Amino acid sequence: MEETFVPFRGIKNDLRGRLMCYKQDWTGGFKAGFRILAPTTYIFFASAIPVISFGEQLERDTEGVLTAVQTLASTALCGIIHSIIGGQPLLILGVAEPTVIMYTFMFNFAKERADLGRNLFIAWSGWVCVWTALLLLILSILGACSIINRFTRVAGELFGLLIAMLFMQQAIKGLVEEFRIPERENPKLVQFIPSWRFANGMFALVLSFGLLYTGLKSRKARSWRYGTGWLRSVIADYGVPLMVVVWTGVSYIPSGDVPKGIPRRLFSPNPWSPGAYENWTDMLNVPIVYIIGAFIPATMIAVLYYFDHSVASQLAQQKAFNLRKPSSYHYDLLLLGFLTLLCGLIGIPPSNGVIPQSPMHTKSLATLKHQLLRNRLVATARTSMRKNASLGQMYGNMQEAYQQMQTPLIYQQSAAQGLKELKESTIQAASCTGNLNAPIDETLFDIEKEIDDLLPVEVKEQRLSNLLQAIMVGGCVAAMPFLKMIPTSVLWGYFAFMAIESLPGNQFWERILLLFTAPSRRYKVLEEYHATFVETVPFKTIAMFTIFQTTYLLICFGLTWVPIAGVMFPLMIMLLVPARQYILPKFFKGVHLQDLDAAEYEEAPALPFNLAAETQMGAGASYAGDAEILDEVITRSRGEFRHTNSSKITSSTSTPANDPLSMQSPRVRQSPRLSELRGERSPRIRGLPSPKTGESKLSNLGKSPQN
Amino acid sequence: MEETFVPFRGIKNDLRGRLMCYKQDWTGGFKAGFRILAPTTYIFFASAIPVISFGEQLERDTEGVLTAVQTLASTALCGIIHSIIGGQPLLILGVAEPTVIMYTFMFNFAKERADLGRNLFIAWSGWVCVWTALLLLILSILGACSIINRFTRVAGELFGLLIAMLFMQQAIKGLVEEFRIPERENPKLVQFIPSWRFANGMFALVLSFGLLYTGLKSRKARSWRYGTGWLRSVIADYGVPLMVVVWTGVSYIPSGDVPKGIPRRLFSPNPWSPGAYENWTDMLNVPIVYIIGAFIPATMIAVLYYFDHSVASQLAQQKAFNLRKPSSYHYDLLLLGFLTLLCGLIGIPPSNGVIPQSPMHTKSLATLKHQLLRNRLVATARTSMRKNASLGQMYGNMQEAYQQMQTPLIYQQSAAQGLKELKESTIQAASCTGNLNAPIDETLFDIEKEIDDLLPVEVKEQRLSNLLQAIMVGGCVAAMPFLKMIPTSVLWGYFAFMAIESLPGNQFWERILLLFTAPSRRYKVLEEYHATFVETVPFKTIAMFTIFQTTYLLICFGLTWVPIAGVMFPLMIMLLVPARQYILPKFFKGVHLQDLDAAEYEEAPALPFNLAAETQMGAGASYAGDAEILDEVITRSRGEFRHTNSSKITSSTSTPANDPLSMQSPRVRQSPRLSELRGERSPRIRGLPSPKTGESKLSNLGKSPQN
Repeated sequence: MEETFVPFRGIKNDLRGRLMCYKQDWTGGFKAGFRILAPTTYIFFASAIPVISFGEQLERDTEGVLTAVQTLASTALCGIIHSIIGGQPLLILGVAEPTVIMYTFMFNFAKERADLGRNLFIAWSGWVCVWTALLLLILSILGACSIINRFTRVAGELFGLLIAMLFMQQAIKGLVEEFRIPERENPKLVQFIPSWRFANGMFALVLSFGLLYTGLKSRKARSWRYGTGWLRSVIADYGVPLMVVVWTGVSYIPSGDVPKGIPRRLFSPNPWSPGAYENWTDMLNVPIVYIIGAFIPATMIAVLYYFDHSVASQLAQQKAFNLRKPSSYHYDLLLLGFLTLLCGLIGIPPSNGVIPQSPMHTKSLATLKHQLLRNRLVATARTSMRKNASLGQMYGNMQEAYQQMQTPLIYQQSAAQGLKELKESTIQAASCTGNLNAPIDETLFDIEKEIDDLLPVEVKEQRLSNLLQAIMVGGCVAAMPFLKMIPTSVLWGYFAFMAIESLPGNQFWERILLLFTAPSRRYKVLEEYHATFVETVPFKTIAMFTIFQTTYLLICFGLTWVPIAGVMFPLMIMLLVPARQYILPKFFKGVHLQDLDAAEYEEAPALPFNLAAETQMGAGASYAGDAEILDEVITRSRGEFRHTNSSKITSSTSTPANDPLSMQSPRVRQSPRLSELRGERSPRIRGLPSPKTGESKLSNLGKSPQN
Repeated sequence: MEETFVPFRGIKNDLRGRLMCYKQDWTGGFKAGFRILAPTTYIFFASAIPVISFGEQLERDTEGVLTAVQTLASTALCGIIHSIIGGQPLLILGVAEPTVIMYTFMFNFAKERADLGRNLFIAWSGWVCVWTALLLLILSILGACSIINRFTRVAGELFGLLIAMLFMQQAIKGLVEEFRIPERENPKLVQFIPSWRFANGMFALVLSFGLLYTGLKSRKARSWRYGTGWLRSVIADYGVPLMVVVWTGVSYIPSGDVPKGIPRRLFSPNPWSPGAYENWTDMLNVPIVYIIGAFIPATMIAVLYYFDHSVASQLAQQKAFNLRKPSSYHYDLLLLGFLTLLCGLIGIPPSNGVIPQSPMHTKSLATLKHQLLRNRLVATARTSMRKNASLGQMYGNMQEAYQQMQTPLIYQQSAAQGLKELKESTIQAASCTGNLNAPIDETLFDIEKEIDDLLPVEVKEQRLSNLLQAIMVGGCVAAMPFLKMIPTSVLWGYFAFMAIESLPGNQFWERILLLFTAPSRRYKVLEEYHATFVETVPFKTIAMFTIFQTTYLLICFGLTWVPIAGVMFPLMIMLLVPARQYILPKFFKGVHLQDLDAAEYEEAPALPFNLAAETQMGAGASYAGDAEILDEVITRSRGEFRHTNSSKITSSTSTPANDPLSMQSPRVRQSPRLSELRGERSPRIRGLPSPKTGESKLSNLGKSPQN
């Protein structure tokens, strides 16, 4: 993206790009068939459960003025609108923790003012939204988002980790609370005598750890060895929601002497007050001085939303996902302004782009796309095998099928590369046993595995999953009687689950782990798919950089504990942007910084989007069979693409090669293949240098041969 | 072992064999240094915890006549004697569940007789022991153990799985009990009101699952990536005892309102009654009719002990362990007779060989031996590398070092084989990059890994660990005040841990798993180290055989629930021996049966024992460094040796080869290597037939290419 501050230009560009693929956004979604329900349900739970929990928090903090009904309504409303007319449909909107903190602060301010009070709080917050919206619109029109590429990995990943820490903190806090008497309850109730409180706490530990453990296990069901493929697939796709249901069921097992209040369950919020829709009439009753004063919290919220929304969108569009459709930062910020205005007028807290749900959404769609692609290729390969084709012919057919499913311009090269390479290694191996041209023995050749190894990461980009999940969130308002059955402890387990799910792929987190890795084990990092910096940056530099970043993270985390200043922690993170650009280069070598914190704006020009293909995808989707890919495959993706951009440029500027198999490129193997993401070793002989990558990698990791 | 029933011959043979290595049994143990404490502590816990728990059970069932003090004393006494003058020091003795069941039955009988009663119960049980001892002595002298080889895998593994089921049942029962009022306690106590009982049960769930999870994880600490090698090593070696301490500590965290009785802890038994040593004087007061009648329970116990002791010993000496020292079934049974007599006279329940502790003992010693061997080889390799030796030279030096540590006659061939093969594959790989004779680049060559892959499974056979653990069990009597601190729920978690730890390596269990493996995933079994039958026996036959065995297992398990008949379940298992020999061959092909249930007596003649070596071992032991082998490596060993016996025979009958590297054998790769046990793939290209083993393996597993 170019850095231009010409008014409206960014918005116009975004609109042009997204309009080109708007139709395909819908057709692609519908053609995926029922399988779209897997990512939809997954994200629905990831979206609804925190929103409900934040709603409960808000209800406590605003004395019941705002409840989970309002947070759910805002999330659903903004989600539906964004999924339909928004720019980037991978972005998930919701009421986030910072909004809750901000609203709590505003409520405490308002209720102490005689001429505002509890009654005019919502009206006053409506004015805050008006100002916020105005600021967002200005930021958007002036092209503030064009500096998004300066929000490098260092800031985004720090923010991601901070959110994970906040989620984990919430989980721990929640569990500790289970041992105490809740604030708004009558402490004389039988379930609050010490013995039942202790019992409740212990039960909560069982339920939350049960959910966390089974939830994490179920995500890996696709690679289980037992059970039918169909069952494994369902568990992997719907395991987490299923586990919420299962552990809610378990919570009903104790009966007899156990009082009704154990375990504690979600609090039932008051129904929506009938006058809520007329908030704007109330707004006119707010004294003028407060209308002007609302500008102060509005600036804070605007900064928060600008950063939060953009970073969530950015993390959902990491390079590792190999997205094909263009980004839409400017236009999405503009829309966010209107959505904030709408929420303010209705009298509900506004929503913005959320982490970790947005990147989780992209990851789940990558799994979906992989399944669709794989089924098609497996079908092709099996047809070839039934015709007694040789290995060489089979790969030819597979490659053809793959290309039919691809956008021709951008991806042709890396795809050809992948197939070519695999073909080569096969030929090499086959020449030993001498059966390259012989018909393939089906019993010996594991096509599904070969194909899994071969396919690059791609994402099913469409609008349907976002729309559906938003509608389902809206349905939660009606489903409150059912939601009330969920024990709060299951919620805490789910928070911990989300925190852990958001860690893989975060390079900052991986560098922290690397610091704790024993020097003699560091070579194991190299044996798996790993980020570039592991090979190119000396360990000491990695350590220094990581320690700096960790210190910064802990400061930000500490800030969230400070009652009012806490809201400004995004400012702290934004400060990283100039720090990265002007201060860090004084302490670290430019080359190292670039590898540790790839600054994308240096190398990523706008790409023309070609939507010729992807329409054929749905056809192969019915071939369900024995779904074999691992969820973790994509979950583990590194958010890094090893400079594939440059190869993208090559392929989009040069004419498409006639025979992709013979095409040579100076950069071999640039797109991450699933086998690498999965952390499998390549089949080279261990311990010997691979001709491609063997240049004394280990010396960087400081592996002492004496350890 | 030859099947001979000439009186005393078996005992004489056993004594001769074990006397030859008696001195080395001690020197070898002492030379291993402090590292011997790892298997010792591991087995001490595995031995003491069930014995304490069985003691508690006995105390409940005999109205306090027998307590944990007596079961601990018996276990310690018999253990110490057996470890010093016993035959097979790998065998662990202890008071087992069947003994407890039997004693309970006897107590119920005695207390209802007016002329016996509660007071003469111990005296009467002394007579039962006298008769049992007599029967065991006769069985032993007549050579009953020479049919031990007819106790094939089918019986032994079924017994092992049954014991695992009983342990797991105890764990579940125990956990359920935590929610109820214990029998012998005052139900009016505050900790038994419904709320505290529920709290106690939930706390028990947390503690037991905590112990189980962390215990299982800690066993794999050696392969962790984080923490220093020293720390990982300590956690892997002492993790389980450590976790018992940790979770006992956790159980003390709740304070304040929580009553003292929560969580429930071990019951403190009465101290040993001062007159206990004079039980034999009481025995003279038993009416003559009961002395004669004691013969009836004695026959049952004798059969039980004969089977239990022999199978425990057999499972501790599986072929996969590559033991070098001879077995001693006859002599050990003789000694068991004397031990039973001794226990009867003292008035404590007798001990016998226990499962799964005995095979656990061997496994932990295999880990120890592997560490010792590895440290020596790593040191050799590093010396070579420091001298800038080539790969070829290095392997030569390593092989020399390895042979110095080996018994020359028996193991030379397989060792040479392993080294030769590795050398070959290295040469092959190096010839591609052309650096076989170049100095080795230390940063690229992971010696520790290479050596781990190379070493065959061996066991540190000695008497010290057995002696020490028995002494420590004896120390428990004095340590009762500390043991009382352990929550019962931690005990249940430990029972579950032992049940799970005993599963890997049990082919019966693995066949059950194979039945539940999806057809399309069965090839994964082949990718790991696997038992012979997977390749040679059709899947349908495997399934049939496994279903038969499972049905039999469930019948045996059902029998244990029948109050009195339950004691005879070992008879049911012994019935499998004739069934295997005369009935099964009518339903299964001989070849298949042999692979599914290797009948060792057909192929395993007595081997001359040569104790020339193993004395040098201790020297290298101080080279601790970064212990790298995985415990699971040995834990997962398959209890099978792929007919290596025949190669043993070859090497022991032919003259030792002069140049082991040039030695050729028609059987290539017969000893399981660690890389195989670890379940790693060999570095061949996936999906292509390996020249050695590729003959349509998959067809046996019924892999349908359509799945």
